[in-house]
Amino acid sequence: MNSFGKLFRVNIYGESHGNQVGVLIDGCPAGLSISEEDFTEDLLRRKSGAKGTTPRIEDDKPFLASGVFNGFTTGAPILISFYNKNAQSKDYKDLFRLPRPGHADFTAKMKFGGFNDYRGGGHFSGRLTLGLVAAGVIAKKLIHQIQIKAHLIEAGGETDIEKAIDQAINNEDSIGGIVECSAENLSVGLGEPFFDSLESLLSHAVFSIPAIKGIEFGSGFKAASMFGSEHNDPIVDSTGRTITNYAGGINGGISNGNPLIFRVAVKPTSSISKEQQTVNLNSGETEKLTVQGRHDACIALRVPVVLEAVTAIVLTDLMLLEGNIPRVINENSSR
Amino acid sequence: MNSFGKLFRVNIYGESHGNQVGVLIDGCPAGLSISEEDFTEDLLRRKSGAKGTTPRIEDDKPFLASGVFNGFTTGAPILISFYNKNAQSKDYKDLFRLPRPGHADFTAKMKFGGFNDYRGGGHFSGRLTLGLVAAGVIAKKLIHQIQIKAHLIEAGGETDIEKAIDQAINNEDSIGGIVECSAENLSVGLGEPFFDSLESLLSHAVFSIPAIKGIEFGSGFKAASMFGSEHNDPIVDSTGRTITNYAGGINGGISNGNPLIFRVAVKPTSSISKEQQTVNLNSGETEKLTVQGRHDACIALRVPVVLEAVTAIVLTDLMLLEGNIPRVINENSSR
Amino acid sequence: MNSFGKLFRVNIYGESHGNQVGVLIDGCPAGLSISEEDFTEDLLRRKSGAKGTTPRIEDDKPFLASGVFNGFTTGAPILISFYNKNAQSKDYKDLFRLPRPGHADFTAKMKFGGFNDYRGGGHFSGRLTLGLVAAGVIAKKLIHQIQIKAHLIEAGGETDIEKAIDQAINNEDSIGGIVECSAENLSVGLGEPFFDSLESLLSHAVFSIPAIKGIEFGSGFKAASMFGSEHNDPIVDSTGRTITNYAGGINGGISNGNPLIFRVAVKPTSSISKEQQTVNLNSGETEKLTVQGRHDACIALRVPVVLEAVTAIVLTDLMLLEGNIPRVINENSSR
Amino acid sequence: MNSFGKLFRVNIYGESHGNQVGVLIDGCPAGLSISEEDFTEDLLRRKSGAKGTTPRIEDDKPFLASGVFNGFTTGAPILISFYNKNAQSKDYKDLFRLPRPGHADFTAKMKFGGFNDYRGGGHFSGRLTLGLVAAGVIAKKLIHQIQIKAHLIEAGGETDIEKAIDQAINNEDSIGGIVECSAENLSVGLGEPFFDSLESLLSHAVFSIPAIKGIEFGSGFKAASMFGSEHNDPIVDSTGRTITNYAGGINGGISNGNPLIFRVAVKPTSSISKEQQTVNLNSGETEKLTVQGRHDACIALRVPVVLEAVTAIVLTDLMLLEGNIPRVINENSSR
Repeated sequence: MNSFGKLFRVNIYGESHGNQVGVLIDGCPAGLSISEEDFTEDLLRRKSGAKGTTPRIEDDKPFLASGVFNGFTTGAPILISFYNKNAQSKDYKDLFRLPRPGHADFTAKMKFGGFNDYRGGGHFSGRLTLGLVAAGVIAKKLIHQIQIKAHLIEAGGETDIEKAIDQAINNEDSIGGIVECSAENLSVGLGEPFFDSLESLLSHAVFSIPAIKGIEFGSGFKAASMFGSEHNDPIVDSTGRTITNYAGGINGGISNGNPLIFRVAVKPTSSISKEQQTVNLNSGETEKLTVQGRHDACIALRVPVVLEAVTAIVLTDLMLLEGNIPRVINENSSR
Repeated sequence: MNSFGKLFRVNIYGESHGNQVGVLIDGCPAGLSISEEDFTEDLLRRKSGAKGTTPRIEDDKPFLASGVFNGFTTGAPILISFYNKNAQSKDYKDLFRLPRPGHADFTAKMKFGGFNDYRGGGHFSGRLTLGLVAAGVIAKKLIHQIQIKAHLIEAGGETDIEKAIDQAINNEDSIGGIVECSAENLSVGLGEPFFDSLESLLSHAVFSIPAIKGIEFGSGFKAASMFGSEHNDPIVDSTGRTITNYAGGINGGISNGNPLIFRVAVKPTSSISKEQQTVNLNSGETEKLTVQGRHDACIALRVPVVLEAVTAIVLTDLMLLEGNIPRVINENSSR
Repeated sequence: MNSFGKLFRVNIYGESHGNQVGVLIDGCPAGLSISEEDFTEDLLRRKSGAKGTTPRIEDDKPFLASGVFNGFTTGAPILISFYNKNAQSKDYKDLFRLPRPGHADFTAKMKFGGFNDYRGGGHFSGRLTLGLVAAGVIAKKLIHQIQIKAHLIEAGGETDIEKAIDQAINNEDSIGGIVECSAENLSVGLGEPFFDSLESLLSHAVFSIPAIKGIEFGSGFKAASMFGSEHNDPIVDSTGRTITNYAGGINGGISNGNPLIFRVAVKPTSSISKEQQTVNLNSGETEKLTVQGRHDACIALRVPVVLEAVTAIVLTDLMLLEGNIPRVINENSSR
Repeated sequence: MNSFGKLFRVNIYGESHGNQVGVLIDGCPAGLSISEEDFTEDLLRRKSGAKGTTPRIEDDKPFLASGVFNGFTTGAPILISFYNKNAQSKDYKDLFRLPRPGHADFTAKMKFGGFNDYRGGGHFSGRLTLGLVAAGVIAKKLIHQIQIKAHLIEAGGETDIEKAIDQAINNEDSIGGIVECSAENLSVGLGEPFFDSLESLLSHAVFSIPAIKGIEFGSGFKAASMFGSEHNDPIVDSTGRTITNYAGGINGGISNGNPLIFRVAVKPTSSISKEQQTVNLNSGETEKLTVQGRHDACIALRVPVVLEAVTAIVLTDLMLLEGNIPRVINENSSR
C-alpha cells in the first residue's frame, strides 16, 4: 500500500502530470512548530538543478492543507500538497504502447489493466519523492537530536563524481552511484524483534525510493569475506561503544548506540536518449525506442536528501513507539 | 513487532532455552493438505549438521497444535510448536554481564531492562528461524507453481566453500558468505506502490533473519558502476521477457515476469572460540571473553532454506492480495 | 488513527474551518468509472438543508485531486478534497476556554495540549463526514450488487419525526433519533473470526461517526429478554435462508446471506441555543454558556447517508479480502 | 483476522475439541511480574459452574509457554496455552450436516468450504474466550490504576436473575441478558480521531465475544429520545468532571476523565434442548433438531469477566500509545 509507519504514518499520493503530488501524515504529535520555510532547504537539495539533473523546473512549493494551525501541528493529519505546473505530457504519449526498458511502464500497465496514469510515469514518477522529503522534514524536526547525513560517495564506479557525470552526459547515457547515510546520537534500543528490526524497517522504506538496487549495513557485503574475529566489534565501555563499527550501529536488529551506517546502490537513470530495444505492446513486435523528454544523467545525485528523509521517518516511528517523543511537543507554549 | 504479512500473517515466538519456539500463522486458506512430513525436508536442510554447523542436536519435530483438522487446514490460525529438549543453559550464564561482541546480548539487555531471557540468545536465537521455515513450508505449498531456490554461492570470499570452512574451523574462527535466491514463474504484477514494493517487502522479511548485512536485487551494487544503456534490460516480447535481467525481475517495485533474483550477505557467526574483548556490565571495565558452547563456523550454510521460506511468505501474501490464491483450496475435496 | 480498512483504506483529514476537508482512499481497484456527478446525490442527502439541519451553506463540491485519469480509477490513491468556503470562525473563539458540554472541546484541548484547531470543532467537526460519504460513494459503486439503505425511524422518541423536530426548534433545543440500516444481497461468508467479525468491523466504523451512542444488530437489546427458542432463526433451505431474522444476517460474526440489519442511536445535537453550565478553563470557575452559531436541531437527520457510507466501506473491504472484487474492474474497457 | 491491538497485540487461536486453545500476546512491556496464580480468579469467574452454566469441566490451567522468564515478562511474545482434556466430540458429529439455528455452523461451513473443525463449534466456540480472559489478566496488571468492573444487571428481562434462569432451565430453554461494564480512573485523552475512537475500539473488541447483539455507551439508546438540554453533561471543574454522565465518559471519541460506562446485550444461548427446525445440508430438506451436549442456560452469566478482559486490552493498547505505560516496568527490579 501507499503508506508506511505504525505511529508516524506517511501516505504518499499523486501523479507526475496530474493536479498534484503530496503526502498525508498521520500521527504527528501536536505542538511542533512548522512553516513552509522549514521545507525549503531539503526541497532544494532534492531538486538539485545541478549538472546531471533534469531541467524540469517546478517551484516545488509545499502547501500545508491541514493539520497545522497558528504555526503548530495540531495532532490531526497533515496534508502537504505540491501542485504540478510545468508538466509536458505530450512527451510521453507513445510510451503507453512502447514501454521504456528499465521503467515501470510495462509492469504498471499490466498490474492496473492499462488504467494507470502513464504520463511522466504517473504514480511511479520520481516526483512522488517530494512527499517523502516533506515528511522527512517534519520527522527531522521531531528527532532533532539525531544527526542524519547522506551523501553520494561514488558515481559510475568513480569517486571523482563530476568527471563521471560529464562523461555520461557526453555519451547521452546515464550512470548509477552509491549513497552512504549515517545517523548519530541514536539511543540504544530502537528496533523490534522479530520482524521489525531496524534493518527491516529501514530497507522497507529505502526500497520505496525509485532506482535503489541494494542496501547494506555497516560492513555489508564485505562481511561475507571476513572472519568473525575481525568482524565482531570489541565493546569498550558500558554505553556499548565499540572500537570498530562493522555492525553499522545495529545488533540483533536493535540500535546499539554507535553510529548507524548504511549504503545504497542506485542504478543508472532508466530514461536515456540513446536508442534502445523494446516491444510494441499493440503489435507484439520489437521496436527501437529513443526516450524523449527531460532526464537526469545521474539520479543518484538526488537520492541523498530522500534517503535522509526515509531514515528520519523510520527513526521517528521507532522513537514514538519507545515513548521517546511526547504526544504533545513543548506543552508550555500551548495557548 | 513479531509478526509479518498483511493477509498471510506470520507470528514468531519462543526462546532458545525456553519450553518451545514456533509460529502462529493467521490467514492461511482452508483446504490445504498438510502433515508433519511436509516439514521434514526443509527442517533437515535448516538443521544441516554438516561440517561448519552447530553440533546441538534437536529433533526439530513440528507439532501442529491448531488450525489443522483431518489433514487439512481449516482457515483458523495454525500454531506450530517446536519443543526445546537439548538446551544446555549453563553455557550462557556469564554472558549476561559480559555481552558477546557482535551479538544482541547488549542491545537486548538494554532494551528490555535486563528482563530478557538471555539463555542461548533467548528470543534472539537463530533457533527462532524454525518458525520461519515451518511457515515457509506452508507458503511454498500455497504457491507451488513458483520455484524458489536459494544456495550459498560464496563463503569467506571463496567459491570453494568447503575449503574456506575447514580453514575457519582450524583457526577457531568463523566466516561469512553470500546466498543467492531466485524465484521463477512469478506472475506479472506482484508488489504495490508506493511503500510495498516487492523489494521493500522481501528486504523487510529478509532482515529479520539473524546475521544478514546486505541485500541486492538483480545487478545490485554493480548497478552503481554501470551505464543506463547497459543496465536497461531490452524487452523482447509482449509477456515482458527481457534479454538480460539486471532488474532482477522487478520494475517499479512490481514483478515483471522474469526470474526474481537477489543475493544477501551473511556475516561470520558472532560466537567464536577465539578470545575477544568486551565490557563487564557490572564493573564497567573491559574484559577478555572466550565464548563457550556450540557454534556454527559458517552460519551462511543454514541460510538458504530460511531465505526460501521468507521469500515464499512474502510471495504468498502478495498472491493472496492479488486474489491469485483462493480462500478455500480445492473445494472439491471438501467433505 | 485516522484511517480504516485493510485493503480498501480510507484516510480522513481536514478541519471544519481550515482550507479543506477530505479523504485519501488507498486500495481502490483500477478501472472503476468515476466522475464528480457520482457524488451529487449522496452529498445532497448529507447536506440535507431540511428543517432541523444547519443553515451553513457550502457547495460541497468534491475535487478529485489524484487517482483518477480519463474518468477511471487508476489503482493509485484517490484524494478527494472539499474546500471550505463559508466558515464563520468568529462564532467559535470563546469556546476555547469555555468547552461546550457534550462536545469534544474539552477532550480535544486536553489531548492535544491546546494545539488543536478549535474553530468549528476543527478536526472533530461533523463536516469531516464529507470524506466518509465520498468514500462511501466509491465503495457503493464497487459493490453495486448489494443494496444498502438507511433511514431515520424515530426522533425524540416519536415516529412522527417532523412534529418532534418542530417541537425541538421551538424550544431552542435538540433531539436524538434512531437510524436503521439494512444491506441486502450479501454473499455468505463476509467477516473474519476472531476479532474481525462483521459486527466488530461495522461497529468500529460506525462509532467514528460523531454523536452515535449505541448500535444493535438484528434483535439487538431485545435479545436480552428473549428465549433461545424464540431467538434462534429456523433455517429453511440450503442457502441458509431463515424464517425470522433476529440474527440480523450474521452468525458467528459472518454474514449468513439473509439481510444485514442494524440500528444506531444518535444523541441530540450538543450545540444548542439554550443556556448551559460549563467551566471556564482559564479561571477554573463554572460559567453559563449560550452556544452561538448555526446548529442542527436533529443531527440524526443527516446520519442515514453517512451510515450507508461506512457500511459500504466495510463491506467493500471484506469483499476485496474474499477476492470477490477484482483488482482491475471491467478489464475489457481497458485501453 | 484473529488479532487485535496496535501495540498490545492479542492473537487468539485454537479449537474447542482440538489440542488446545490460547493466546499469543505481542507487545507486552518487559518486567511485569506474572505467575500462573494471577490467572486463577478471572478464569474461575469465566468458568462459573454456577447454575445456568455448562457442566463441561476443564481445569482451565494456563501454561505460560514463552515470553516469561524468572517470573517476569521478557518483552518477547507471550504464548499462553490451555490444553483441552474433557472434550466429548461424539456429541457434535451430526451437526455438520444439520447446522444449529443461531450458531456459526452454517456460516463457518460455507466460508471455509467444509474444512472447518466443527467439533464443539471449533474455532467459533465460546471456549476461545479463555485466551481473551488470559490476555485481560495481563492487561489489568499493566493498567492496575484503572478499576474495571462488569456485572450482569438483567437476564431474560428480569432483574431477579436467579429466578429467570430457573425458569429457563425448567423450560429446557435459554435466556439472554444485559451486562454493564465500568472503568474508573481513566486519564483524559484515550481514543484517537477519526476512526479509533474509544467507542470504536471497545465495540470492535466487544463484538468479538460470541453472543453479543448490541452495545451502548452512557445514555445509549435512551439518548435517541432525550433533548440536548438534558443530555449534555454540565462541566463543573477544570478536570472535566460532569454532574451527569450521559456521555459515558467519552466525548468526541476520547475519554473525558469521568467513569467509562457501557452496556452490552447478550442473546440467549443458541444451543437448547428444545426441538428446532433447520435444514439438512446434504438433502436440502428441513429437519427437526434437538441439540445434545452440555449447554449454558444463560451464557450472559459468563460474559462479565470476558467484557472486563477486552476492556482492559483496549485500554492497555491506548495507554501504550499515549506513552502512559513504560516499555520496561519497574526498572529498579531488573537484575
